[in-house]
Amino acid sequence: MKRIYFDNASTTPLIEEVKAQMISIISDNFGNPSSIHHFGRQAKIIVEDSRSIIAKGLCASTGEIFFTSGATESNNMALLCSIRDLGIQKIISSPIEHHCILHTLEYIQKNNLAEVHFLKVDHQGHIDYNELENYLSKSDKKIMVSLMHANNEIGTIHDIEKLSHLCKDYKVLFHTDTAQTIGKKAIDVSEINISFLSGSAHKFFGPKGSGFVYINLNNMIKPLFHGGDQERGIRSGTENIYGISGMAAAFKSAVENMNARNEINLKLRNYCLQRMQDELSDIAINGSTTDYLSNILSVSFPPSDKVDMLMMNLDINGICASSGSACSSGVENDSHVLNFIGHPPERKTIRFSFSHLNSKLEIDQLIDVLKKLTPIK
Amino acid sequence: MKRIYFDNASTTPLIEEVKAQMISIISDNFGNPSSIHHFGRQAKIIVEDSRSIIAKGLCASTGEIFFTSGATESNNMALLCSIRDLGIQKIISSPIEHHCILHTLEYIQKNNLAEVHFLKVDHQGHIDYNELENYLSKSDKKIMVSLMHANNEIGTIHDIEKLSHLCKDYKVLFHTDTAQTIGKKAIDVSEINISFLSGSAHKFFGPKGSGFVYINLNNMIKPLFHGGDQERGIRSGTENIYGISGMAAAFKSAVENMNARNEINLKLRNYCLQRMQDELSDIAINGSTTDYLSNILSVSFPPSDKVDMLMMNLDINGICASSGSACSSGVENDSHVLNFIGHPPERKTIRFSFSHLNSKLEIDQLIDVLKKLTPIK
Repeated sequence: MKRIYFDNASTTPLIEEVKAQMISIISDNFGNPSSIHHFGRQAKIIVEDSRSIIAKGLCASTGEIFFTSGATESNNMALLCSIRDLGIQKIISSPIEHHCILHTLEYIQKNNLAEVHFLKVDHQGHIDYNELENYLSKSDKKIMVSLMHANNEIGTIHDIEKLSHLCKDYKVLFHTDTAQTIGKKAIDVSEINISFLSGSAHKFFGPKGSGFVYINLNNMIKPLFHGGDQERGIRSGTENIYGISGMAAAFKSAVENMNARNEINLKLRNYCLQRMQDELSDIAINGSTTDYLSNILSVSFPPSDKVDMLMMNLDINGICASSGSACSSGVENDSHVLNFIGHPPERKTIRFSFSHLNSKLEIDQLIDVLKKLTPIK
Repeated sequence: MKRIYFDNASTTPLIEEVKAQMISIISDNFGNPSSIHHFGRQAKIIVEDSRSIIAKGLCASTGEIFFTSGATESNNMALLCSIRDLGIQKIISSPIEHHCILHTLEYIQKNNLAEVHFLKVDHQGHIDYNELENYLSKSDKKIMVSLMHANNEIGTIHDIEKLSHLCKDYKVLFHTDTAQTIGKKAIDVSEINISFLSGSAHKFFGPKGSGFVYINLNNMIKPLFHGGDQERGIRSGTENIYGISGMAAAFKSAVENMNARNEINLKLRNYCLQRMQDELSDIAINGSTTDYLSNILSVSFPPSDKVDMLMMNLDINGICASSGSACSSGVENDSHVLNFIGHPPERKTIRFSFSHLNSKLEIDQLIDVLKKLTPIK
């Protein structure tokens, strides 16, 4: 069976240039970038060239990009180390962040490391910027705002420019998890004021296990790991040269092809949405109607016997999608995001997330399958 | 120039079966192991098969093996989380541990997280087991002993069986950094009592950026990172499926070929040592004369104008070796290990570390080069 992959918000396939880059490094390079001999220098060049690509794409300085094992590690660094090293006393976030933020915030609260305040979100996943400003204006604590750029389950985008200005005005730090937006939204840290920003290669057609954190030079932290002082002392451990160079190749391609890919995604999303609305009964779309990622379509299906096992039945019919975030140990849990935006628990949501590698024909096949599995008009 | 790689204690080349395994995963797999659809399940199988291989090789249960980004992360987890989660009040270690232990212990001391006691080491890098026992017998604190299995710079091996028995007798935890000994010394955790054990794939012909930590079920900790609850909640973050499966292939090969590789290493080491002793003037060997790794030869050269730039001149002559540990951001620092074993600072030490991929001919070429660069008999 030729399977259709509509779960690109969970992870993406490696694109050909990334495969080629990784296979080339695997085949020909093996040095330890910390070694000062020939093989070490070769590996060092791979790491530093990769850093330049990512720094350039974000308009950051190379001294502000640090390689990690992924956005989970990057986000943990930003939250935990800013409390420990920069005296942050309060973190303002939202209840629909990714678990790597929420579970870290739970840890922070449980251990009294800092106060945590969750902003309200509306039925589309928007925060209220006035509530945030009001909160910032009244607090005398040392604050960091931590809000994802776009939500991974429903695709709602936060206005990081507005957030950045607010944070600047009130002299508080601003951390944003950009796992879902690298390669989808242009980010220029020389223009907008960001303290910490994190990314994971496997969300933009790069390898799993490689990510980065941008740390503004004005708010440098100390490491979460201690060791051989790699990454200028901020992140120790021998560098994953295959993953790092694969991530850089993916990042370069993602930035260069951003508009073209967004256009394909949007066309697919619109076509899919139109056909669903025309042919399926009583569906609803979760997330923002105004500010949303072009590749995510979170669809709420009406209650029925047929939709109870929808995820499994889609899989049996060759359609790979997700009932929410994948990052929950393979268990189909209730979604905290859907709970917070007031999604009716008796309905069933499936997140379809597209990429430029998908086609209109695949959407047609999805609709055919959905017409067998869910109530039709 | 065909370069000779004698820096295998720093990192190792990928062996062919590891390259093939990684390239196969890169080419054909991309699922997120946490996704419950077809591609996710495929990726999950890769991760769990890899875990089984490593568990089997250590005689551990699969529930005791957790994948990390390398031994640095694993060691940080063992030290920091055992203090936080298991109430460890004192860590007993040695001053010649790897920086990922020492710098973590410095952090622990500086932040008053626990007491740290460093055992004395003799001129060959041995600890005094009586001193340790004496210390254990007198302390009423909750203790963890953290000692590397073999030293990365001088190759001296600690008797982890003896250490394990001592720790068991005095009911204290035992953590050992086995970065240098996986695939070189058989380790059976069903026979000897170990609380935490860490490894890095790139030290046994696997990929950089992948490692593991064995955590005995009796002393399970909570995570250092928080997130999607991968690795049964102990280590969040989407799994590096290329690295993990490459590590498993390397681990399998390392265990299966342990004796053969050790034999080759020992022959190379003995031959190299013999020729150096016969032909070079006033050299000395750092490390144990009784319990040493077969692949490490740490050679101390007499002071002379010629040896000041020895590392660089070896590199120019196509020989890649190391002046100590590589994990110090590419800077040729003074070695804390050599300082502690009383190596005369006016002498110059080079660590030659061999592998089964090296040959006698390469040793001959090394001796030819050394005869140009160092005082001869």
